Amino acid sequence: MPVLDATHDAALRSFVPGADGHPDFPIQNLPLGIVSPADGAPRAGIAIGERVLDLPGLLAAGLLAGEAARAAEAAAGPGLNRLLALGAGPRRALRARVSELLREGSPDRAAVEALLHEAASCRVHLPAAIGDYTDFFVGIHHAENTGRQFRPDNPLLPNYKHLPIGYHGRASSIRPSGTPVRRPSGQTRPPGTEAPLFGPSRRLDYELELGVWIGPGNALGEPVAVGAAQDQVAGFCLLNDWSARDIQGWEYQPLGPFLGKSFATTISPWIVTPEALAPFRIPQAPRPAGDPEPLPYLLDAADQAAGALDLVLEVLLLTPGLKAAGLPAHPVSRSNARHMYWTVAQMVAHHTSGGCNLQPGDLLGTGTLSGPEAGAYGSLLETTNGGREPVRLASGEERRFLEDGDEVVLKARGLREGFAPIGFGECRAVIVGGAG
Amino acid sequence: MPVLDATHDAALRSFVPGADGHPDFPIQNLPLGIVSPADGAPRAGIAIGERVLDLPGLLAAGLLAGEAARAAEAAAGPGLNRLLALGAGPRRALRARVSELLREGSPDRAAVEALLHEAASCRVHLPAAIGDYTDFFVGIHHAENTGRQFRPDNPLLPNYKHLPIGYHGRASSIRPSGTPVRRPSGQTRPPGTEAPLFGPSRRLDYELELGVWIGPGNALGEPVAVGAAQDQVAGFCLLNDWSARDIQGWEYQPLGPFLGKSFATTISPWIVTPEALAPFRIPQAPRPAGDPEPLPYLLDAADQAAGALDLVLEVLLLTPGLKAAGLPAHPVSRSNARHMYWTVAQMVAHHTSGGCNLQPGDLLGTGTLSGPEAGAYGSLLETTNGGREPVRLASGEERRFLEDGDEVVLKARGLREGFAPIGFGECRAVIVGGAG
Repeated sequence: MPVLDATHDAALRSFVPGADGHPDFPIQNLPLGIVSPADGAPRAGIAIGERVLDLPGLLAAGLLAGEAARAAEAAAGPGLNRLLALGAGPRRALRARVSELLREGSPDRAAVEALLHEAASCRVHLPAAIGDYTDFFVGIHHAENTGRQFRPDNPLLPNYKHLPIGYHGRASSIRPSGTPVRRPSGQTRPPGTEAPLFGPSRRLDYELELGVWIGPGNALGEPVAVGAAQDQVAGFCLLNDWSARDIQGWEYQPLGPFLGKSFATTISPWIVTPEALAPFRIPQAPRPAGDPEPLPYLLDAADQAAGALDLVLEVLLLTPGLKAAGLPAHPVSRSNARHMYWTVAQMVAHHTSGGCNLQPGDLLGTGTLSGPEAGAYGSLLETTNGGREPVRLASGEERRFLEDGDEVVLKARGLREGFAPIGFGECRAVIVGGAG
Repeated sequence: MPVLDATHDAALRSFVPGADGHPDFPIQNLPLGIVSPADGAPRAGIAIGERVLDLPGLLAAGLLAGEAARAAEAAAGPGLNRLLALGAGPRRALRARVSELLREGSPDRAAVEALLHEAASCRVHLPAAIGDYTDFFVGIHHAENTGRQFRPDNPLLPNYKHLPIGYHGRASSIRPSGTPVRRPSGQTRPPGTEAPLFGPSRRLDYELELGVWIGPGNALGEPVAVGAAQDQVAGFCLLNDWSARDIQGWEYQPLGPFLGKSFATTISPWIVTPEALAPFRIPQAPRPAGDPEPLPYLLDAADQAAGALDLVLEVLLLTPGLKAAGLPAHPVSRSNARHMYWTVAQMVAHHTSGGCNLQPGDLLGTGTLSGPEAGAYGSLLETTNGGREPVRLASGEERRFLEDGDEVVLKARGLREGFAPIGFGECRAVIVGGAG
């Protein structure tokens, strides 16, 4: 079980206005990111309420020492890769020290206040240079829902319950929340036609996922044991694996998704650390009777006892019609990160089991995290049953797939009795019309 | 048709000993790479015979000016990404100037000789930091041969002749020629068994491919037209897409190859430029009667007229038994790069057609380039018909798949009447036993 310490105390208060009770970033969270304040170059920061604490500034002001200073030194530059590479020790030391500095009654309050940027005036960036991006498929309800559309009697393929299925994704097109997504064109073959066409996707979809930031990494040829795999995890984010279903459906045999996914992936820009998420760790759900035991290289008692996450996940849709009518975003789905058939440690252990090397700043996606019932599906493909049952909105609009001007917002929150709720911030992007 | 100029003249001679008539690196080739000489840090170089010309040294000695100097300046540092990003102009200027400097009768001979390293004493590195690696599947004979093992009557899937099938590969595990490859362990389900096993792969294979280095790249959301796609190509290499067939067979449905490929990819370390390959450009072979015309976004008259490559490709196998007996490497296969159903320009245009951005230093693989007949197959899966018909060696050994200690060597050569033959250098690696 991850250790809980003074930084998790629900009674902690911060002097930063609006931090206490902030839905995402109270003093118990302290996620890491890279921002450009209005007047400056990209730099490392920590989100607190509606402010961002300037990490290089903290170091320059002499407010950090020892391991915490080492962490901040590694965070110099335009990405956090070197900080991620350091592993848990310096990251925890930085968290502990920043928690002290931001508390009500901090003796360094004046110095720290001078290092707070208004979040609203900061531009957010990717928090690290992403070397490789791997997308898994561990949301079992999503695997069943999508598999059922192709194989009604046998939705899951024979390998699904034996290994965490994954594939290599495109790293270059990952963008932080707020970057518009251009509707892709591509080759499709509509049902009933013989010859394929080229044109804008008509079945554009989102996918609700968590992202996992890799920390130290492993050398080529040296697998990470499942019991040591959590040490490789430097943090989490939200991830929207945008998917053009019509392009994907025509191209993906036999080598898997390619252009149907590679046009864009949106992530929330804050790295929510394993420390911040410690209160929301839960046991991995027991496997249903009849499911196979994982092979030994995927099985660790401590991981089974506390390797899953209890996080409420949401998808909100804001259409031009809703905006024009002054209506709020439509809550399409509410799911939970507990619907993962494999833990993050199992994903890491499997990924490296053949010797593949992970590197600091690599990103893993979980795959779409749908819940078991309607209202908890993480994609429109599932929510509208392949476009057959539209979502109806208060504006009178309906949606089978995404239209230009639609904005998708993903959210994640940890909620547990006795602990301060924390959130991931938004993972948001608007669809804009394609080129040409 | 690519322009031929004075640098291609077959009559050119170099003062560098052994360069004239060198099978790979005569003065007509001049490929780019990154090497560490015995006494120094990694630096950019140009291969000439059995020597490597020091590019930073050439710049420091004042032997370059204008665009050629700009190219060498961009080659400072541990990777050639910034040089690749410059595109054809500076690259061509550098080639023209280096060709002059290395010729017999060069007035700068003494200064240049002082900047030549012995290739044998240099360590080779990856020539650029590889952001994303994409592997295509455009060798149609390979696609048919492997498809036939699953679907005897219908080896090619319906999309194959409409678009260049590709998938995202793993960039972190790409290594230069000479790096040993550790046999991967993984999950497999042998035929006739119900439960999967975990252990060392028993069906380890190579794949004979060309690699394509991307030059300037494109912005996210801005596709590259097929007629402009050659401008994105900064050079070529050999690529061995090592494949664990037993791991691949069990894992790959529905999202494609993952751990069966990601444990290692070996490339030849020299970037052979489009300029060096200009004499070996040929028309794309006409499609067989009944094959569909490519859609307009994949069709360009100039590309059809000169977008293919005539390069002889070879696979050699050197086993412990052959080495012990003092026997030469066994020539397993001889194929040709002309067996690509899609051109490199079509691969680039398709890859970016939905807006996916390519970046300088990205690498594309062509897929296995088998010829149509026995003796021309680019993998053991094809050569041994899935392991059923072993290769017999002069040492008395036989091989269905690779064993520990086996060394695989890939070669590529341009051979055309009236032009100096050039080669890619070796793409070589030995298999070593797995961990644990």
